Amino acid sequence: MSMDALTYDEPSKAKKATLRKIEEKGEELAYLQRKARELGIPILVVVEGLSAAGKGTIINQMIQPLDPRGFKVSCIASPNRDEQMRPFLWRFWRRTPSADRMAIFDRSWYRSLLDAKINGVISEADLEKAYADVRNFERQMRDGGTLILKFFLEVSKKEQAARLAALQNNPATAWRVSDAVMERHAQYNDYLKAVEQMFKETDGEGGPPWLRVSSKSTKQATLKVLDHMVDTIQKRVDEVKEGTPALTATNRPHRPLFRDGPSLTTTDLSRQLSKEEYREMLGSRQQKIQDLHHEVYRLRIPVVIVYEGWDAAGKGGNIRRLTERMDPRGYEVIPVSAPNDVEKAHHYLWRFWTEFPKAGHVTIFDRSWYGRVLVERVEGFCTETEWKQAYHEINEMEDNFRHFGTALVKFWFHIDQDEQLRRFQAREHNPKKQWKLNQEDWRNRDKWKPYEEAVNEMFIRTHAPHAPWTIIEGNCKRYARIKALDVVIEAIEQKIADKTK
Amino acid sequence: MSMDALTYDEPSKAKKATLRKIEEKGEELAYLQRKARELGIPILVVVEGLSAAGKGTIINQMIQPLDPRGFKVSCIASPNRDEQMRPFLWRFWRRTPSADRMAIFDRSWYRSLLDAKINGVISEADLEKAYADVRNFERQMRDGGTLILKFFLEVSKKEQAARLAALQNNPATAWRVSDAVMERHAQYNDYLKAVEQMFKETDGEGGPPWLRVSSKSTKQATLKVLDHMVDTIQKRVDEVKEGTPALTATNRPHRPLFRDGPSLTTTDLSRQLSKEEYREMLGSRQQKIQDLHHEVYRLRIPVVIVYEGWDAAGKGGNIRRLTERMDPRGYEVIPVSAPNDVEKAHHYLWRFWTEFPKAGHVTIFDRSWYGRVLVERVEGFCTETEWKQAYHEINEMEDNFRHFGTALVKFWFHIDQDEQLRRFQAREHNPKKQWKLNQEDWRNRDKWKPYEEAVNEMFIRTHAPHAPWTIIEGNCKRYARIKALDVVIEAIEQKIADKTK
Repeated sequence: MSMDALTYDEPSKAKKATLRKIEEKGEELAYLQRKARELGIPILVVVEGLSAAGKGTIINQMIQPLDPRGFKVSCIASPNRDEQMRPFLWRFWRRTPSADRMAIFDRSWYRSLLDAKINGVISEADLEKAYADVRNFERQMRDGGTLILKFFLEVSKKEQAARLAALQNNPATAWRVSDAVMERHAQYNDYLKAVEQMFKETDGEGGPPWLRVSSKSTKQATLKVLDHMVDTIQKRVDEVKEGTPALTATNRPHRPLFRDGPSLTTTDLSRQLSKEEYREMLGSRQQKIQDLHHEVYRLRIPVVIVYEGWDAAGKGGNIRRLTERMDPRGYEVIPVSAPNDVEKAHHYLWRFWTEFPKAGHVTIFDRSWYGRVLVERVEGFCTETEWKQAYHEINEMEDNFRHFGTALVKFWFHIDQDEQLRRFQAREHNPKKQWKLNQEDWRNRDKWKPYEEAVNEMFIRTHAPHAPWTIIEGNCKRYARIKALDVVIEAIEQKIADKTK
Repeated sequence: MSMDALTYDEPSKAKKATLRKIEEKGEELAYLQRKARELGIPILVVVEGLSAAGKGTIINQMIQPLDPRGFKVSCIASPNRDEQMRPFLWRFWRRTPSADRMAIFDRSWYRSLLDAKINGVISEADLEKAYADVRNFERQMRDGGTLILKFFLEVSKKEQAARLAALQNNPATAWRVSDAVMERHAQYNDYLKAVEQMFKETDGEGGPPWLRVSSKSTKQATLKVLDHMVDTIQKRVDEVKEGTPALTATNRPHRPLFRDGPSLTTTDLSRQLSKEEYREMLGSRQQKIQDLHHEVYRLRIPVVIVYEGWDAAGKGGNIRRLTERMDPRGYEVIPVSAPNDVEKAHHYLWRFWTEFPKAGHVTIFDRSWYGRVLVERVEGFCTETEWKQAYHEINEMEDNFRHFGTALVKFWFHIDQDEQLRRFQAREHNPKKQWKLNQEDWRNRDKWKPYEEAVNEMFIRTHAPHAPWTIIEGNCKRYARIKALDVVIEAIEQKIADKTK
């Protein structure tokens, strides 16, 4: 809670001048908040700092002049049970601001990393991986148009001691100075070291820079923070007004092309199974999936299955065969269509991050984030820069999933144009299935070539070793169902082996 | 997990016929799901039952034919930390379906009550209160147009024992038969008694009836459940097509009018404070609020403060003075304007329920659920039946908050028409404040009379003893700020006294 609330009783002349400046800056900030909202600029403010550095007081000064319709303060405590069962950035992705919002973080993704480092519960290798994930996250946000401001409030050990003592002396606040707080105070020097490493890993180099603020005088610190916010937001507002394009990442590490991936042209669509073969094979595989589903739950392995493919390639029926014997408490099918207004106002990966399964659960995406490099590319729903950037961002997201031990399966359901035509016509003539077919399906069909090109490029750029694509030959639905089951079984068994070895 | 998955290998003739019927019913259900979505009928399905009654299997059969875009399965476990800090219906309100959705609950609000009863952690009086809250909740949902279906799967003690043994004998599922499950099995008879009470409290009488289903044969049970769903949804679809109005509650308990409440006509708007008086009074009260905010957090008291009032009555500036020294980690201002698309697709109270503060936190609603009986009534945004019904529903919601120990403050900010005109004109002439004024404000002003009538009726119908209204005389902003602080301080001190006595 606030350490040094600003006081209004009989201020001295210098104090008065500072208070007046704070008020002025606050008014400017309120004006810029409205401008940024009008221009659709999402703003993400991170306030980090040691115990008793006055984060609460400064955030309160920051939000007082703002229009409450336009911001949200998130206080980051230790992750709860639900959050612990997701990749560590999941809870922050969920809270990233939409285009008309300012998200203010009191502590942030840095908190977990600093705490883990101090408590010695993370290896240096994992910490480096985590900082890489953080850099990617911040860069993806920035490339998506989000303005990120990061403040670090500094406080000397002596000053910290004095403030904690003051808290202890007030009966209303004494309980806040817990043993944990005192322990952290004792570890002051270790914290400083961890903080220096944090700066080294995440200050600048294309990412958003840190502003270090001495919190010795809360008023001066407040003024410095507000001043920096006004300057930075003003600059972005001007850029957007002048039509300066959103930044594009310039210093991404080089990604190899995955030339060993599948290809539509060499796929053998004649593969099939007879009714009898299918009957015989289906039951045992479904039983296997049912058993593995229990194992996955017990071992807390998250499973993500992506279904992409041509219209009418049989994804729906395939998903039904896959899930028929699963426990509905442990799986969910997420159908992905055009984003709604809320989703459009966020980063395009936001809606997929938020649907990431709890560890031990299975999420099946019926269409997915690959829409960015398929339909959005072909139909011109995003810019060329955006879909080209997306390969990289998707690889990073899937890396993130992998770091968390996810079993990831990606299917492309392939049929040929003749087979698609047959199925469209069958739907047209079946009153029960007519609803499945619309004008858009016919239009997509006319763009077979550009889609084919997009699919092949998608394979080359995202068939990473730990996130491989599998083409499902779909002309024979029975064959497709057995193959999909087999691939899922193998992927899960592999993860179980990794986890239990 | 599934106890008795339907098998497809070599079924007998009778089995085959049942499977065919299940498939047919599934297709009908899928058709009705689309119809209900087109007509905007939200559907809420509750599947309750004892351990090993086969809830999972039946839900999976239910969802297999459905379009995944149209439903969501929620599995209700014990409430997590976040949920425990809210009224017990909060987590269910959050999951109520929107108009284009079917929400399927595997266990539900009944789970908590059954468990609490068996474990002896709830008094009979509290249990009765909770069942009353449940009846109100289901009735509010129904009156809002939601179709509720409740299934209870029965299983004999002998059959339960056999199924648990089967689970234990399968290495993939043995771990699921935990000590807790075996303990519940041993308490079988106690459960039956608790279940009978549940039926007595919540079966019919205007509320949605229970369908009790023997789960001896999973196939027969599935068929019975699907059959009932098809019949019930078909009936509602027909009603809506024929324009039958949504049900209105017929057997609500009589609510007294609160004639001792405040009244706009007798309010003395001449009250004021000088600058010097104000200065002197403000600091100590803000300090008091700051200290109480700590206490509220420590004692885990939720605080809800409603700001209603005329346009330009000074709500914004007042909220700033109230929160100026609070810790931003412990309070949130929720500005309420016209509902967005997602909100419109839910019950009108949904967006307020979801914003209910964590115990120990303060939520300030800048406008609120009272919009239903103010702007929505006056502007005709809802029907007369709807706003008349709302008084009752709002009283019930506030009762719910009270049962949870909430400190609730409701302000009406009052100014006279001359003062409003002066403030509108001042805004018009101040470039920094012009954005605060729009055409709608002028239009609202023309409807002063009907608004006044709505406000006075609101007082009479919702000034309940534990949820009283306070008029803030707003012509003098200084007076209004001090009075609002005093009222909040008193309400919180009262709750602290209740809690610590």
